[in-house]
Amino acid sequence: MHRGLLALGLLLSLPASAEEGMWTYDSFPSAQVKKTYGFEPTQAWLDKVRLGSVRLAGGCSASFVSPDGLVMTNHHCVRSCIEDLTTAKDDLLAKGFQAKSAKEERRCPKVEANQLVEMTDVTERMNTATKGLTGAAFNTALKKETAAVEGACATGTDVRCDVVTLYNGGKYQLYKYRRFQDVRLVFAPEFSMAAFGGDADNFNFPRFGYDVSFVRVWQGDAPAKSPDYLPWAKEGVKEGDLVFVSGHPGGTERKSTVAELEFQRDVALPQTLLTLAELRGMLREFTSGSADRYRMARSRLRGVENGLKALRGRQEALADPALLARKRQEEAELKKRIDANPQAKALTQGMWEETAKALDAWRRMMNDHRMKGAGDAFRSELFAHAQALVRAAEELPKANAERLREYTDGQLPGLRQQLLRDAPIPPELETLQMTFGFNKLRETLGADDAFVREVLGKEAPADLARSLVRGTKLGDVNVRKALLEGGKAAVDASKDPMIVLARKVDAQTRASRKQYEDTVEAVLKRNGERLAKAYLAVNGTSGAPDATFTLRLNYGQVKGWDDNGTAVPALTTFGGAYARDTGKEPFKLPDPWMKAKGKVPAETPLDMATTNDIIGGNSGSPVVNRDGQVVGLIFDGNLPSLGGRYAYVPESNRAVAVHGDGILAALEHVYGATRVVNELKGAQTAPAAPAR
Amino acid sequence: MHRGLLALGLLLSLPASAEEGMWTYDSFPSAQVKKTYGFEPTQAWLDKVRLGSVRLAGGCSASFVSPDGLVMTNHHCVRSCIEDLTTAKDDLLAKGFQAKSAKEERRCPKVEANQLVEMTDVTERMNTATKGLTGAAFNTALKKETAAVEGACATGTDVRCDVVTLYNGGKYQLYKYRRFQDVRLVFAPEFSMAAFGGDADNFNFPRFGYDVSFVRVWQGDAPAKSPDYLPWAKEGVKEGDLVFVSGHPGGTERKSTVAELEFQRDVALPQTLLTLAELRGMLREFTSGSADRYRMARSRLRGVENGLKALRGRQEALADPALLARKRQEEAELKKRIDANPQAKALTQGMWEETAKALDAWRRMMNDHRMKGAGDAFRSELFAHAQALVRAAEELPKANAERLREYTDGQLPGLRQQLLRDAPIPPELETLQMTFGFNKLRETLGADDAFVREVLGKEAPADLARSLVRGTKLGDVNVRKALLEGGKAAVDASKDPMIVLARKVDAQTRASRKQYEDTVEAVLKRNGERLAKAYLAVNGTSGAPDATFTLRLNYGQVKGWDDNGTAVPALTTFGGAYARDTGKEPFKLPDPWMKAKGKVPAETPLDMATTNDIIGGNSGSPVVNRDGQVVGLIFDGNLPSLGGRYAYVPESNRAVAVHGDGILAALEHVYGATRVVNELKGAQTAPAAPAR
Repeated sequence: MHRGLLALGLLLSLPASAEEGMWTYDSFPSAQVKKTYGFEPTQAWLDKVRLGSVRLAGGCSASFVSPDGLVMTNHHCVRSCIEDLTTAKDDLLAKGFQAKSAKEERRCPKVEANQLVEMTDVTERMNTATKGLTGAAFNTALKKETAAVEGACATGTDVRCDVVTLYNGGKYQLYKYRRFQDVRLVFAPEFSMAAFGGDADNFNFPRFGYDVSFVRVWQGDAPAKSPDYLPWAKEGVKEGDLVFVSGHPGGTERKSTVAELEFQRDVALPQTLLTLAELRGMLREFTSGSADRYRMARSRLRGVENGLKALRGRQEALADPALLARKRQEEAELKKRIDANPQAKALTQGMWEETAKALDAWRRMMNDHRMKGAGDAFRSELFAHAQALVRAAEELPKANAERLREYTDGQLPGLRQQLLRDAPIPPELETLQMTFGFNKLRETLGADDAFVREVLGKEAPADLARSLVRGTKLGDVNVRKALLEGGKAAVDASKDPMIVLARKVDAQTRASRKQYEDTVEAVLKRNGERLAKAYLAVNGTSGAPDATFTLRLNYGQVKGWDDNGTAVPALTTFGGAYARDTGKEPFKLPDPWMKAKGKVPAETPLDMATTNDIIGGNSGSPVVNRDGQVVGLIFDGNLPSLGGRYAYVPESNRAVAVHGDGILAALEHVYGATRVVNELKGAQTAPAAPAR
Repeated sequence: MHRGLLALGLLLSLPASAEEGMWTYDSFPSAQVKKTYGFEPTQAWLDKVRLGSVRLAGGCSASFVSPDGLVMTNHHCVRSCIEDLTTAKDDLLAKGFQAKSAKEERRCPKVEANQLVEMTDVTERMNTATKGLTGAAFNTALKKETAAVEGACATGTDVRCDVVTLYNGGKYQLYKYRRFQDVRLVFAPEFSMAAFGGDADNFNFPRFGYDVSFVRVWQGDAPAKSPDYLPWAKEGVKEGDLVFVSGHPGGTERKSTVAELEFQRDVALPQTLLTLAELRGMLREFTSGSADRYRMARSRLRGVENGLKALRGRQEALADPALLARKRQEEAELKKRIDANPQAKALTQGMWEETAKALDAWRRMMNDHRMKGAGDAFRSELFAHAQALVRAAEELPKANAERLREYTDGQLPGLRQQLLRDAPIPPELETLQMTFGFNKLRETLGADDAFVREVLGKEAPADLARSLVRGTKLGDVNVRKALLEGGKAAVDASKDPMIVLARKVDAQTRASRKQYEDTVEAVLKRNGERLAKAYLAVNGTSGAPDATFTLRLNYGQVKGWDDNGTAVPALTTFGGAYARDTGKEPFKLPDPWMKAKGKVPAETPLDMATTNDIIGGNSGSPVVNRDGQVVGLIFDGNLPSLGGRYAYVPESNRAVAVHGDGILAALEHVYGATRVVNELKGAQTAPAAPAR
């Protein structure tokens, strides 16, 4: 009965947990690891693991696992690629895929892989550019300087440069990546095995997913060399073992103010969640209609369900009074210390009131901004192409620093890849989603709203969506290419209905975005910086920065937890997977698994839970042992880990990974994926230290 | 920019608005009305309007509008009746309906109308029964005494007796109603006209709905006599006129504690909203599939959309920091006054801590309770029948006071009507909803949960739902009747799969319900009583009690409002409806309206906004002028009125009604509904004072 109160007591009395923290490689607490586990990573160890880590630009992590560009990641991280390669006749997503030779490896139209090769501090430069500025002026200056720094760094399409924000702007760094845009599919299991247990098991444990895929980065017309790969461990990990996770956590809000968290809880999350829930209902019903429709929308549905469950977990964490009570207490203590420190006090002068005002403004412009500025009214890949073409025509002639961020030189290769990838866009799903967006537009802003009338006229949402999708030629990559290369003249002359729509709404959608960025985003960002600096001034140290989809390393151990009185084990096994099979989706083991029954010893580990502090974006991260060797593959977290967005709770927060032994055993005995197995085992003989 | 802060200032500095308050008839503030409007309702006036008011047991309001049992209400209040009378060949919901003679009036299988004839205070008796009790004992005693009081009062099936709670239990009254179970449909417009503007216009204004229907109560085999009817006004109301609304607001939480409101905002509302949003997406997609499916599920969809929008409005009201800031301040002041008053202090000893504990327990049992105790896992009319039969077999042999509330003598006629109504139950929709419920069950409690395994076994949710719906015979009213009359022996012997399922889960669903009722409901109810008494002790007066679907009267005026700088007019017109027509649903005027274009002067009022303080349950309430004559029909509120659940904001809270002139004009010139028109106009000549 009193668990909530007990939990509160625990939270308040405990210091930050040893395992807490998504550390940047330049401030990893090696000494702290040594204290707890008796092992201290050296600089060489850190460099090796960093260079073995890979970022997938779409929002995932990965790792080099052979010297020949072989990359391991989750199935769900390359699902859109597999989907792009799927046809009605050859359903790769359902069946899985194996390339028996380099030649058979199939190019993913829109996957980009990055390897972090250099980090440079640019805090001074960014601070100078925004000095004394607020609101829109602050935002504009920050964006201009970002574009300038990135532009100077990005010397070719194989180099990607991002100015990244750390400590909410307390620190800026320029991250230079080796960029790979030729990424090819090597191995994928069946969708139903990657996502075994479906939405019901997602973020749950024990679970039995085999969310594993291998791709390869190519350069020129050959596999790229990747000397800094992570070798496969000869011995798997067991409960209690020290493990490290290197990857790209997407975002946390552990340093956010209470007002910002309350805004998330009360305003932002509810709106997003309701949209996702309705989309989910629609897509589930749509996919239940026929096998064709299922194939068309299953991946989109899975994405929506994953997002819904993840955000719901966040909302539930914020709805737990204990969490916000702890935050309130921490904030009160911080304010007291700031008040006692003249420098910190000056830094944060008027900050709390400004934040409150910005949040109030956000609350009142949210509907307008979501629909127009953020584009929720136009949920369609074809429309996204149209908008990108219309805006590219407008932006590219401008000086680099004057452009909208996604059209700056540093970002262009990604944009081109999105626009010019040759993958099918199913019209039925497009119509469905556009109809949804138009309906939401009218519901949200009201039938009498001028913008709604401009978009819909007297049309019914479904009719308008159908006629736009039928009428547009933007599904053809060559049409898009011609418009992109034709520039403003070509776009202005186009009578393609999707382009016409994108042109018609461009001024208003831009204005809505600008209003949000200047009035809300800029204020919160600047105040985040101010608070981060004040925090440093009064505490002397900052801990790990909030996650920003930049490379991080953390440590932990293989470990289960206590779920409200039930002991959850650290490992699941092949035997458990067979026991859980019901023969019905989403608990149906695919044929190769049924045929292989008994070939892999039942006690072989399949999935595992660890105490590592991870969050969305870490999907596909390698789990490595103290020798920097691969012992697992992160693909999930448990439900309590979703609240890790705001606070890490050591008792229950767990990362979930496919166990290294399980990965190999299934490759070998279920899939007969000899080529991949040989490559992984061949790489095991490599020296533990980097070969450079 | 500062509207939120300004609004807060306004809220804090203003006294309770004159229009605020859903008053019981025995404490209507006539003097206050006189002060503001120069008109003081007499006791005779109050009696007449009360007796002219009708409650529809499903959750709506209505009124007698002729001496021959003619009842006016909203189309959406009898939509389920129209739906029950609809067949694939004769789509009454789409086409509308008119009985040209008494014989043609068609019986609604499940509509029950009540007329409040007597109110008796039973506070003393209830207090004595629960004196000194807490938790489960308090709850049990309260329920037993309620059953006893109601049982003694309900002398026949034409009498309905409810012990009603006022002031959160500060006061209990026994409400005695005349009960009509033979209710027949007289007139209904097209669904698309009743709901013109669909979900987009729901809770919006200006709007142009014609949400009007007429039914008639019968007794024996003739129309019932209703001498205490409300005559139709000869002159319609205009902006600024004083108007009264008499009806049955379903529920408000204006006296709830801040902790309870925060619980609603953070825990209860998000969960309900997400379920409704997903259901909506599913049903929209389902209905878009075919005309058959649309007909089958349109009404259910509309209900889901209405609930979703209404609850979303509540959640948004609670997310407005100004509202909770005001509540917090009021509560702090109340606590101060309680602390200074020994009697009040003794009454509330330990109350706040107990409430916090109960809410914490609720939060942790919510998933379990929703799925099992509240039945969210079993969303099906057929299952509801099965459960009612299984439980009736168990409960009816017990002494009245020992039964679950819905099986007590006072409640039995309603239960019998539900079980034995002869209306079609579409299997495809049943399967859809059951599948949804089973999926939610597994998602919510997890695939490893024992109850989930017991219900689903190794079945997929959709397969199980399909086989249950296919296998059950409970769609046949005669089968249900036989099981109801056969009692426990018949039910125990039944092999009907739905009965088998209901039997299998009965112990666990009852236990879950009991746990919630004893640990949460009983504590919050008892504390509500204690706080209400303490409030009275320190303030001397209690204002109007929170709404509890009991008859209330309030006053206000016809008036528009200022919506963020835009003036919203008080009235809309027939001309406006024609201008809004797009020829496409949901803005398509039906053929009779298109044909009648020009017959009704364009400036004739159609809908109107008033300052009356109403809430869901008031749908169908008559709007009357100072002569107690009908001038309108409540069918909606504006978006700000949804926050009226927690606080009435005079600047923006508006009730929305069909204007009396508009009702008559359309009956006469659009529908040629001569019979109803003549009956209404004939009744206009009746004396203004009651004929008794």
